Amino acid sequence: MKLKVKDMDIATGGILVVLINKEDAAKLDLHAMDRIKITKGRYSETAVIDIGESRKALLPGSIGLFEEVIHSLHAKSMDTVHIRIAKKPISVDFIKKKLDGKTLKKQEIEQIIWDIVHNKLTDIEIAYFVSACYTNVMTMKETVMLTKAMAECGDILKIDKYPVMDKHCIGGVPGNRTTMILVPIIAATGLTIPKTSSRSITSPAGTADTMEVLSNVSFNIKKIKKVIANVNGCIVWGGSLNLAPADDKIIRVEKPLAIDAESQLLASIMAKKYSVSSTHILIDIPLGSGSKIESKGEALKLKERFEQIGDALKKKIKVIITDGSQPIGNGIGPALEARDVLWLLKGDEQQPHDLKHKSILMAGYMLELAGKSKPGLGYKDALGILESGAAYKKMLQIIKAQGCRKIEPENIKLGSYTHDYKAARKGMVSGICNLCISRIARIAGAPQDKEAGIYLYKHKTDRVKEGEVIFRIYSNSREKLKNAVEELKRNNPYSIK
Amino acid sequence: MKLKVKDMDIATGGILVVLINKEDAAKLDLHAMDRIKITKGRYSETAVIDIGESRKALLPGSIGLFEEVIHSLHAKSMDTVHIRIAKKPISVDFIKKKLDGKTLKKQEIEQIIWDIVHNKLTDIEIAYFVSACYTNVMTMKETVMLTKAMAECGDILKIDKYPVMDKHCIGGVPGNRTTMILVPIIAATGLTIPKTSSRSITSPAGTADTMEVLSNVSFNIKKIKKVIANVNGCIVWGGSLNLAPADDKIIRVEKPLAIDAESQLLASIMAKKYSVSSTHILIDIPLGSGSKIESKGEALKLKERFEQIGDALKKKIKVIITDGSQPIGNGIGPALEARDVLWLLKGDEQQPHDLKHKSILMAGYMLELAGKSKPGLGYKDALGILESGAAYKKMLQIIKAQGCRKIEPENIKLGSYTHDYKAARKGMVSGICNLCISRIARIAGAPQDKEAGIYLYKHKTDRVKEGEVIFRIYSNSREKLKNAVEELKRNNPYSIK
Repeated sequence: MKLKVKDMDIATGGILVVLINKEDAAKLDLHAMDRIKITKGRYSETAVIDIGESRKALLPGSIGLFEEVIHSLHAKSMDTVHIRIAKKPISVDFIKKKLDGKTLKKQEIEQIIWDIVHNKLTDIEIAYFVSACYTNVMTMKETVMLTKAMAECGDILKIDKYPVMDKHCIGGVPGNRTTMILVPIIAATGLTIPKTSSRSITSPAGTADTMEVLSNVSFNIKKIKKVIANVNGCIVWGGSLNLAPADDKIIRVEKPLAIDAESQLLASIMAKKYSVSSTHILIDIPLGSGSKIESKGEALKLKERFEQIGDALKKKIKVIITDGSQPIGNGIGPALEARDVLWLLKGDEQQPHDLKHKSILMAGYMLELAGKSKPGLGYKDALGILESGAAYKKMLQIIKAQGCRKIEPENIKLGSYTHDYKAARKGMVSGICNLCISRIARIAGAPQDKEAGIYLYKHKTDRVKEGEVIFRIYSNSREKLKNAVEELKRNNPYSIK
Repeated sequence: MKLKVKDMDIATGGILVVLINKEDAAKLDLHAMDRIKITKGRYSETAVIDIGESRKALLPGSIGLFEEVIHSLHAKSMDTVHIRIAKKPISVDFIKKKLDGKTLKKQEIEQIIWDIVHNKLTDIEIAYFVSACYTNVMTMKETVMLTKAMAECGDILKIDKYPVMDKHCIGGVPGNRTTMILVPIIAATGLTIPKTSSRSITSPAGTADTMEVLSNVSFNIKKIKKVIANVNGCIVWGGSLNLAPADDKIIRVEKPLAIDAESQLLASIMAKKYSVSSTHILIDIPLGSGSKIESKGEALKLKERFEQIGDALKKKIKVIITDGSQPIGNGIGPALEARDVLWLLKGDEQQPHDLKHKSILMAGYMLELAGKSKPGLGYKDALGILESGAAYKKMLQIIKAQGCRKIEPENIKLGSYTHDYKAARKGMVSGICNLCISRIARIAGAPQDKEAGIYLYKHKTDRVKEGEVIFRIYSNSREKLKNAVEELKRNNPYSIK
């Protein structure tokens, strides 16, 4: 069938979609979500169809092409294209197979991931895959195959060193910027640590957002290799690379139901580690109400699964379960967290002791994992490197290698509007709600506004006097600050007893 | 946040969607598939957001509204609207609950169905519901609640008679137009049979498509009640009513993976019976390669489940398993099937005997089920009504009540282009592929072109001579006929031994 192109002037950003009038669809016996092959001269492309029910949307005889298809076919409005029915990708059969409770083979998993990465599957089809893996839990063998398939469908940062150190935190705890402390400690010992981090999705800051206050974080693989060759480590945004790109597309369809399919969580984390050639990996599982893992049993089960997949992938993995019941560090938000990091590395008296202790602990475990420290001596060694100033020196090297100059913590700009939350009466801090803190910081503008966020003066078990400042909200927008204060009134993060 | 309306000039036909530029989305911390409440003056509406990644799609400061939202807000381009974050519908939590293997309560199922019917859930969320019911099979109690929820979210055809007769065929067999024979037989006995039927989705003709060759089939509830009051029965298109409207939306997301969740199949069929007040229902499960149910075990399991749900809904149900291994009747396609029906009702010598036998059998079971015939005598009674001419007379009354005049089978117009498929050598028909027959008839134009289709001269076990016509394809388009003949060459439906 021949149709005239109408440029819809919209990008879909995902699977290729074309719009067809229902009268034309009836002629070819096409239904919504069927696939067609569109040909224009020597260009052709497969897309999913959407049916325009009214003539207002699209006249019969026309085909509405979205930006990606226009581009792929080198088409413009009023061009003539041919269409014919195309088959579903074979991976749809494999998804059905998993939904039917069967175990998938290597090439079946690879095909599903390839099709997800290349936008061949609709959100509905990907949702069925997520659902299948959630209800018919993948075996460890399947999970390993999924991990490798996810990694191999993206870029690989190949590093010819051994060991290659890495860490991952399951997340959910505001602040907690350990990466920016332990990467310079580890790198200062001569070990290689090519750390890629994410930007925030639902938190007030990701490591990439925070590091960006001090240096560039977006690099290609070639440039990252150069940084590592020079200074042993880096702290960069993983999103600027194309590491395990299926992950984002899977997370997108997990979101509506907040599904965390365990096999996908494991595969998603391990695929990114696999992509950057890590050999020795520390996994941090913060445990506590308001963090991602809320029960000890769940944490222990996840720990065991990480150890199993580490063995299966021949990676040395150490998993620690840490206190995730309150924010770690004082600053919440990119600039405030970056200031904490610099204070800590410089040994300034304003450094947050909880973040210091946790970072040293983790760095210590990593030194032991790599065989740099004798068992039991990692903490002491890591502390020594930090207190000697070697870690700060290394951080300055990393910042320079990532294209920026030294900055003093006092010179980090913070939001110009502030609000102090003061204690209504004296007492002791008995609890801090992670989720409430995150929400207030985000409403104040973090992480888009890097200078927005919260500075905590009090942690759990600290005593407060009446009228004493418990935390300060920063924002660059009067209205956002007002909204944050209103949110604070609705959901106060602090319990004082 | 205030945004300027851009009329996208597209209808989505389902859930309400608005398009927002990624810069605005970041400001409000909105992500794709989040929900927002849009307000314009005294109008407000909740919609799911889609993020425009480029400025080409939508400039920051604008909001792209699709037809349904434009309408609901009484908005036009350049109007100012306010947006704020809205919560997910609570039914999303219930879907998650089912996905986690738990049993749903009545009000939870009702909420899910209400939200599906009112376009509150995205396709992804509905897909998770389908998937949850598929992998964590619903209990009979849940299925009954689902059936009632589906029926009660739509129109109800209330009929104050007892019994109210009905039938349903699981489908998959071309031809098989039993409804149009047994409705007049049943109605001729004085029993009430308000038959609503579907149009074809993937077959060459639905009962509604075929009846439409002889009379109108689209009526509102008031008019249908009037027809039934006058002539005891009707044969109308269910789609012109709003019976169990969740069904179509669920089927839509089942399609990509060809999922048939048993509980949904049962609920979908029984909800429609519930909606038209049926009390006595005959269910026909055609069994055979190429029909929907291909194994005896599957058919027996489904039979049992129908009997269980019938008991639970306090409906008298009789389930029969019939031969579905080949087309039933000679005509395939609306006009050809309507001609078979008239020949059969008139007792013409060209009547298809297989369709006659099956229709009489089914009508007989229904007479017994209603207590009109003594056990074992239904077939004889039904045959008597048919052969007396009473059924034909009743059919003419129904046709007249549905707004048309008597038509002679010879006057039914058929496609002007034909192609005869002849036997290459003598032998016996050992098999006919249902799916291949359907596909050829559809490519020839059925059901959109009512006069297109296939007329079968031979059924299974019939002997053929070399050069004898086995079937004839009809079409009103030379090109479609050509395509149908090509399809015939690729996939010949007849096996001759």
